[in-house]
Amino acid sequence: MLLQIEFESDIPIYLQIKNQIIRGIATGSLRLGEDLPSVRQLASDIGINFHTVNKVYTQLRQEGWVVVHRKSGVMINPELKVEKNTDYIASLEDSLSNITAEAFLRGVTKEAFFHIVEKHYAGYIKEGRE
Amino acid sequence: MLLQIEFESDIPIYLQIKNQIIRGIATGSLRLGEDLPSVRQLASDIGINFHTVNKVYTQLRQEGWVVVHRKSGVMINPELKVEKNTDYIASLEDSLSNITAEAFLRGVTKEAFFHIVEKHYAGYIKEGRE
Repeated sequence: MLLQIEFESDIPIYLQIKNQIIRGIATGSLRLGEDLPSVRQLASDIGINFHTVNKVYTQLRQEGWVVVHRKSGVMINPELKVEKNTDYIASLEDSLSNITAEAFLRGVTKEAFFHIVEKHYAGYIKEGRE
Repeated sequence: MLLQIEFESDIPIYLQIKNQIIRGIATGSLRLGEDLPSVRQLASDIGINFHTVNKVYTQLRQEGWVVVHRKSGVMINPELKVEKNTDYIASLEDSLSNITAEAFLRGVTKEAFFHIVEKHYAGYIKEGRE
């Protein structure tokens, strides 16, 4: 797994890692059931505090993206089937409300916005995900 | 201006306020040139620390959404014309990369995603914004 961390970014490091793992699952660069490095290994690879990695793995586990076994460590949930629940849809609506408002005011047309979404969706894989 | 703050939310309060002001401009509930409450007034209305409001206004000013006059206070930038710069487009691409990946994995189809975007764009006003 190749992570690109921008230490100068406004986005917290834990969130950069978490986002990249979720994107990795969607694009197929991380396979279901694939092992992830241990907390200490990943922390050492990136050169960050292991508490930061711990926070990422804890959130990923709570949200169902990874499973943790005492012996075999952390892996992408082999039976990933994240639910489309009402809470998630509400938070998606809310995020898009903020993002589209700013995009609109900055002159990004709806069509240009669609184009970006379309491009990302085109990179996501469906195989073995149903 | 009616702000709805969720004190229990994971989203920091300053960001909730900032997002709602930007959305207010996009939807027209805040007019260009409209006065905003003073930092202390708004802090007192919501019941939060004035440093939090100060952070919101500072960011909004830096990004060009509001202007601050020593005497007349803070108002929505009457000559709002926010630039669509390369940095902004890069950050929009990045946000949408994360959001669409999660939406896809949670079973939100591209069409359903478009539908949400469409709905928000339909609420934004163009009058007097060119």
